[in-house]
Amino acid sequence: MSEQYSFIKATIRAIPDYPKPGILFRDVTSLLENPTAFHQSVELLAQPFRDKGYTKVIGTEARGFLFGAPVALALGLGFVPVRKPGKLPCETISQSYQLEYGEDTLEIHRGAVGPGDKVLLVDDLLATGGTIEATTQLARELGAEVSEAAFVIALPELGGIERLQKIGVKSHYLCSFDGE
Amino acid sequence: MSEQYSFIKATIRAIPDYPKPGILFRDVTSLLENPTAFHQSVELLAQPFRDKGYTKVIGTEARGFLFGAPVALALGLGFVPVRKPGKLPCETISQSYQLEYGEDTLEIHRGAVGPGDKVLLVDDLLATGGTIEATTQLARELGAEVSEAAFVIALPELGGIERLQKIGVKSHYLCSFDGE
Repeated sequence: MSEQYSFIKATIRAIPDYPKPGILFRDVTSLLENPTAFHQSVELLAQPFRDKGYTKVIGTEARGFLFGAPVALALGLGFVPVRKPGKLPCETISQSYQLEYGEDTLEIHRGAVGPGDKVLLVDDLLATGGTIEATTQLARELGAEVSEAAFVIALPELGGIERLQKIGVKSHYLCSFDGE
Repeated sequence: MSEQYSFIKATIRAIPDYPKPGILFRDVTSLLENPTAFHQSVELLAQPFRDKGYTKVIGTEARGFLFGAPVALALGLGFVPVRKPGKLPCETISQSYQLEYGEDTLEIHRGAVGPGDKVLLVDDLLATGGTIEATTQLARELGAEVSEAAFVIALPELGGIERLQKIGVKSHYLCSFDGE
């Protein structure tokens, strides 16, 4: 891992027993508070996708907005929010997905992407991949091409990388944490 | 209004009868999808606050993240999220505020800002000013100085500008809509 990536990784705070006992939560708010780490993260997230024909960046509410919007700006692209139900004012399509307990639903504006769009997905963290799989399905249902996603953090043990690979989405990430 | 501001204003879509009959909703997602408008908005939002001693930008979940995080990067500052209850993993303080029906609560990490910090608040829209007043109270309770807030859109008829003025916060905005 290059020095830059190590520096970014070191700004990510670990919170024991959150949101429940036994979980070591990786908190990006400590990265966001550090202007150098935040700036470098956005540059490194955007870098592999320059001049590759991307037309839009999608980020999923709410933490996906924190990196997705800046990456869109860094790439000179428009940003499309995927949101929880009832938050987008125009006509939407929706996609439900399984959580550990129960399910959740995400929505996208019907006209936000379409055929001819090549879309990059951006989120802070890749764990099981459920929200990014649902986001991929939404963009593809509207006719857009989705084949890559960029994350600040990946937790490979939780299987998200393989899950996204199975649906044809390659995961890029700046830092990974594995049973540390 | 300069040509640049008119261009940005023209990208903001108006949605009749959302979220309820009689309301003309101003939708920034159409601005975000336009890379030129999004880029110019962030530059214009940040411009008045360069080299003025600001140390952090605060944005409030969720739409405040879309402009707050990019403005923080544009100013070379760290970004601090204010979130709905239970979303921040470390120790928080909270502030409730009145909605039209009922009330809502916002939280900030206790260590996120403090004495010596001069904080800029950023949000997409200033309406009644309730969320920004609550956000101001949170930052001040932690000892930070708050005297300015920047918005893409202001709806002056809803009284938010005066409400914030009363608590010593000056509002800056790129576009306003008034009974149009």
